[in-house]
Amino acid sequence: MKHLISLFLNCQKIRYTTILIVKRWSCLTPQLLANIQQKRGASDWGLRKAKQKSKVLAQNLAMCDPVIEEQLAPMRKAVKEQGDLVRKLKENKAPEIDLQRAIADLKHRKKLLDDKEFELSPKDDFDRGRLEDLLKQRFFYDQSFAIYGGVNGLYDFGPMGCAIKANLLQMWRKFFILEEQMLEVDCAMLTPEPVLKASGHVERFQDYMVKDLKNGECFRVDHLIEAHLEKLLTDKKLAADKKEEIRQLLPRIDGMDKTQFGETVRKFNMKSPITGNDLSDPIDFNLMFSTSIGPTGQLKGFLRPETAQGIFVNFKRLLEFNQGKLPFAGAQIGNAFRNEISPRSGLIRVREFTMAEIEHFCDPLNKDHPKFNDVADVEVMMYSGCAQMDGRPMTMVKIGDAVKSRLIANQTLGYFMARIYLFMIKVGVDPKKFRFRQHLSNEMAHYACDCWDAECKTSYGWIECVGCADRSCYDLTQHTKATGVKLQAEKKLQEPKTIEVTECSPTKGVLGKTFKQDAKAITEHLTQLSFRRAQRDAQRFTRSRAMNIEVNGKHFTLKPDMITIKTYEKVIHVEEFVPSVIEPSFGIGRIMYSVFEHNFKTREGDEQRTYLTIPPVIAPYKCSVLPLSGNPEFHPFVKQLSQALTKFDISHKVDDSSGSIGRRYARTDQIAIPYGITVDFDSLKEPHSATLRERDSMKQIRAPIAELPGLVRDLSLSLRTWEDVLNNYPIFEQQQSTKTDAQ
Amino acid sequence: MKHLISLFLNCQKIRYTTILIVKRWSCLTPQLLANIQQKRGASDWGLRKAKQKSKVLAQNLAMCDPVIEEQLAPMRKAVKEQGDLVRKLKENKAPEIDLQRAIADLKHRKKLLDDKEFELSPKDDFDRGRLEDLLKQRFFYDQSFAIYGGVNGLYDFGPMGCAIKANLLQMWRKFFILEEQMLEVDCAMLTPEPVLKASGHVERFQDYMVKDLKNGECFRVDHLIEAHLEKLLTDKKLAADKKEEIRQLLPRIDGMDKTQFGETVRKFNMKSPITGNDLSDPIDFNLMFSTSIGPTGQLKGFLRPETAQGIFVNFKRLLEFNQGKLPFAGAQIGNAFRNEISPRSGLIRVREFTMAEIEHFCDPLNKDHPKFNDVADVEVMMYSGCAQMDGRPMTMVKIGDAVKSRLIANQTLGYFMARIYLFMIKVGVDPKKFRFRQHLSNEMAHYACDCWDAECKTSYGWIECVGCADRSCYDLTQHTKATGVKLQAEKKLQEPKTIEVTECSPTKGVLGKTFKQDAKAITEHLTQLSFRRAQRDAQRFTRSRAMNIEVNGKHFTLKPDMITIKTYEKVIHVEEFVPSVIEPSFGIGRIMYSVFEHNFKTREGDEQRTYLTIPPVIAPYKCSVLPLSGNPEFHPFVKQLSQALTKFDISHKVDDSSGSIGRRYARTDQIAIPYGITVDFDSLKEPHSATLRERDSMKQIRAPIAELPGLVRDLSLSLRTWEDVLNNYPIFEQQQSTKTDAQ
Repeated sequence: MKHLISLFLNCQKIRYTTILIVKRWSCLTPQLLANIQQKRGASDWGLRKAKQKSKVLAQNLAMCDPVIEEQLAPMRKAVKEQGDLVRKLKENKAPEIDLQRAIADLKHRKKLLDDKEFELSPKDDFDRGRLEDLLKQRFFYDQSFAIYGGVNGLYDFGPMGCAIKANLLQMWRKFFILEEQMLEVDCAMLTPEPVLKASGHVERFQDYMVKDLKNGECFRVDHLIEAHLEKLLTDKKLAADKKEEIRQLLPRIDGMDKTQFGETVRKFNMKSPITGNDLSDPIDFNLMFSTSIGPTGQLKGFLRPETAQGIFVNFKRLLEFNQGKLPFAGAQIGNAFRNEISPRSGLIRVREFTMAEIEHFCDPLNKDHPKFNDVADVEVMMYSGCAQMDGRPMTMVKIGDAVKSRLIANQTLGYFMARIYLFMIKVGVDPKKFRFRQHLSNEMAHYACDCWDAECKTSYGWIECVGCADRSCYDLTQHTKATGVKLQAEKKLQEPKTIEVTECSPTKGVLGKTFKQDAKAITEHLTQLSFRRAQRDAQRFTRSRAMNIEVNGKHFTLKPDMITIKTYEKVIHVEEFVPSVIEPSFGIGRIMYSVFEHNFKTREGDEQRTYLTIPPVIAPYKCSVLPLSGNPEFHPFVKQLSQALTKFDISHKVDDSSGSIGRRYARTDQIAIPYGITVDFDSLKEPHSATLRERDSMKQIRAPIAELPGLVRDLSLSLRTWEDVLNNYPIFEQQQSTKTDAQ
Repeated sequence: MKHLISLFLNCQKIRYTTILIVKRWSCLTPQLLANIQQKRGASDWGLRKAKQKSKVLAQNLAMCDPVIEEQLAPMRKAVKEQGDLVRKLKENKAPEIDLQRAIADLKHRKKLLDDKEFELSPKDDFDRGRLEDLLKQRFFYDQSFAIYGGVNGLYDFGPMGCAIKANLLQMWRKFFILEEQMLEVDCAMLTPEPVLKASGHVERFQDYMVKDLKNGECFRVDHLIEAHLEKLLTDKKLAADKKEEIRQLLPRIDGMDKTQFGETVRKFNMKSPITGNDLSDPIDFNLMFSTSIGPTGQLKGFLRPETAQGIFVNFKRLLEFNQGKLPFAGAQIGNAFRNEISPRSGLIRVREFTMAEIEHFCDPLNKDHPKFNDVADVEVMMYSGCAQMDGRPMTMVKIGDAVKSRLIANQTLGYFMARIYLFMIKVGVDPKKFRFRQHLSNEMAHYACDCWDAECKTSYGWIECVGCADRSCYDLTQHTKATGVKLQAEKKLQEPKTIEVTECSPTKGVLGKTFKQDAKAITEHLTQLSFRRAQRDAQRFTRSRAMNIEVNGKHFTLKPDMITIKTYEKVIHVEEFVPSVIEPSFGIGRIMYSVFEHNFKTREGDEQRTYLTIPPVIAPYKCSVLPLSGNPEFHPFVKQLSQALTKFDISHKVDDSSGSIGRRYARTDQIAIPYGITVDFDSLKEPHSATLRERDSMKQIRAPIAELPGLVRDLSLSLRTWEDVLNNYPIFEQQQSTKTDAQ
């Protein structure tokens, strides 16, 4: 709740959108709303504080280059003008159609600004084609079922990708579940329809598509229209007024509804871009894969589109497991499925993917976090909703400051954002290519009341890798509505309250005699009657001397000798409430792809020698073991090293193929092996020693063979730094594949 | 191949079945068949050796109790008589119908023997209901979507089950993938139909069911018939001849086809056991969940029924990754799905489950394993096919002896069987409740040519937890047939061979000019032409001066200026072959369930205090941290311990709830926490110390607080034994929750 309030304080201009959200927020009690109103009265002070703060933040813009800023200035201005217009229209309660147009135009201007900013930002010499070649050639991942022609949007991870993924998930478990003692669950992927109806996915989780009327091929209609219009714009013969019309239309595509999509397709006489055939009207297409559970065909199911629902439907069990105490977090790692209409962009948009999700359940009135101070000084790049509407650039902000100034709504959200940042950096994301972007109200999912995306900058632009959303009490409320099962927690009242209670108690003997095997269910039904229902039933019962109930689809009539109705006063010490949920949700494939891009390097002076600087903790193998040549005398040392490394649980690769040592180093660099042990002719002499090479610096030291496995383990687990190793062992210059000693 | 041969040598009597298998084994070359014939000539010697061996094995029957054996003797005799009859019928090429009947009766006699043996085997006081209560109450696992009424055959793992599963899989990765440097993959679960057509699953992966004609409810027809007939047998009024007929029929159910099922249902006028409604004729029901991939509805797909196919379709990439060398193993951990008609028995038969599968690819002519000697002395309980047909009991056999005597066909199969056994014991399976059972030829899956099941004894009987099958070259051959992509490996010829080669080389310039963007595909097509095809094309080309080809669905005509045809002799040094596959396949849920049963214990003298003796390496938490009471002075020590344990990656649970220390110990025992640290009043004195308790012995020691986290880590990782700790720290007798010092 604090969170919503803070939006008022911090960014008064967008309070109208916020109110819209509040209205949608079905579990708001009148008290909470009053609370908001009260805080709004106090907002002048808050706003002043926030403004002071944002000046400090603005001075903090270390990243802005004045030359670039000059080029961006007019675009920033254009965004701000439009942002102000949108706010004004909302304030004046302008007609919905005008507002939608203005928002679409704002989006368009924002996109132009973002694209330009991306274009002008410093470039490294990254070449996506070469990275993709490497990833494919060394089987990090590749299209699934390729020998059968492949299936779009499905990928198989090979040994290297699989090891990276396993390491990443293992690290995630340690970093989040172990560190915070979260309650991990592992739930079914097959999900019956009612669950996803309640969560809103059956109704709202969809795209529009058009079909080629002859061959049935499908296209996402928004993508199709955009591509068609942009192609028209490049046509030199097209009249200027027509071009202007298209320019006006382009920014509105995102906001179109089904009818508008259809009109646009017809108006521009669009055909299939592949065959030139006519296209159907837009069709709703739900993105979930459906199937039938069990043999009867009567239980419709879907493959889950997110792992979150598994945690929500287990809320009661998890709360019990946690001995009824809040806050606690559930977590789940697993696959989810989305039947994308036309998947593209490699690992970025796929049909089957691994997620790692956390649902942190807490008191809506207290979202403080006990460990917040541990992360208050963490500084991250933030692109707030206000900045986006004002055309202002993103800024580096300390998490502590952001929560203090209410740019971030509460400590728990801030705590998780900091932890997400720290995790991403640890697994190899470049901090200079990382930001948090706040969702604008019109782009939030149907369940969210606030959302920050952790985005990574890649050659595809900024891509969302982790979402950090406040789902409020949406999901728990929905599942309660659908099932009648209360998904609530209790907290102690500051003062005990006296309430009136009406109870229908069964007279078990008579009930059992009359209804036999149904008696148990009837008793349960009576015990579970809500207070209101019990009162109503009691009144009716008093009037008619009979009570009709329905249990498990059967009807029963209860007579006076079967139940006793009691009304009495009760002192209660606790109150029930529906917890709020903060949800950090990780897309593992997208994180992996970002890590690949951010760590793809080329050796200076040698275009051909590409390598991956993936951190040891994530690297697929921690170490290579290379005999300098095929000399059989090296063999026992290689075997000894391999066995010792296995004993230490250090994944490693023995490469005794015939290439030169330089060539084999290059190959291990390509699969991101951070350390390499080479057995050479000096190894044969007592005391036996071998060389250890580090991938990024290519520096080498010489150490006793017995010490090397432990050394590699300590380096891999970050218990020791490479600098420290360099300072404690003799530097080794270069191997030679002859018997001459190399010094 | 050796494997098949060994079956001849070792168990001559069942060679007929083996021949049937051989005939089915489509990739047998004439050479290999000749090889078998030759070996059969030598089989007398082999048989003598095997017989000598089996005498030794028979003497090795440490487990047989003479009193029990006396009761079993007539049943053993009955099995042997029938087994001999089956062999004789096969030998005499008796009509198929007679053979089937004899086999069905053999099965029935075997079942009676097995059931009796199970019934007479020593019982512990295991109570399944109490275990299930514990597992549910402490949320190890429970039915999925319970608040929506639940879905049969779907289970969610709660925090405890999830942690055990994660630990089990982590251990599996270390024990198999890391130890053997296997190539792990992580493939799509969504699988297009052609892949599963090729693997045989679309055609053969099915059960028969009958439907309630009114409400559509489905029943597995074999289960229905069996239940109906067994119920009839209990009817005292039923005539003796009718009973005899039913007794004759019962053992034949397993071997019935669709028509026979239908006849039986009609003959006995069977109705739905739930509603009494009429039933449909038997219907084929494929056990795979089907769905549609992509929006067009044109690409039919299934959820994979096993993870193995993902490895097979990636064989080429994996072989390349392994630099073309055999043997190597692919491995995959992941979920698979089977739409069981009526799932039951908890985790044993479910619709969605986690598997861990290994596909070890090797030369069919050399299935030796380099590390075989490391496991030759491992002794495991084996229930061979011969023993099953002879009514003999299972026996303890050393893996080395079993391979030597050819009871196990080859070193690789033996190596994996030993490793499976060692793994199972490590994760908590009771060695006394473990055996390998060899499949009889008529119960093997359609792809297997030999199979041993690792079975665990549970209250459900012996259940298959790991299959260890020789899939021969079935899958690779099938995928090659379906796709035309060669899935083969190469090996060096002992002597080089000279062959004739015909090549169509494109004249790239002309080709490019004529066909523009298609030129590349045409060049590729020409390069990939098989030898035979190239020869045929070359002949046609010589005749007609033009070559018509089809590439990617387009047709092209090549003229003489576009290609050059060369025929020349070539010396080849390698030959191609389709590798054999040995497949150990682990059902993770079943292993977990067996571990639960084998480790469920009750404290002596206290019926209520149940606990789980799950090994530390698998236990969900390694350690609990308990303040003796709510005294706030304990808090900093609890926090210090928790932080230190987190730093060591030791999962732990702080329980500062208000129960007595004994009660909290009991609770941690129930969730299998092996070690407990208690902070008490002595902890407040310098030097600060706390107590450490071990779950199974309930013994305690006292140690400095600073040493405890390291101690727990070493114990959890089996780097130190509890006995060693007991010998090195002072024993502690009992905590008291008062300020009195406890000694």
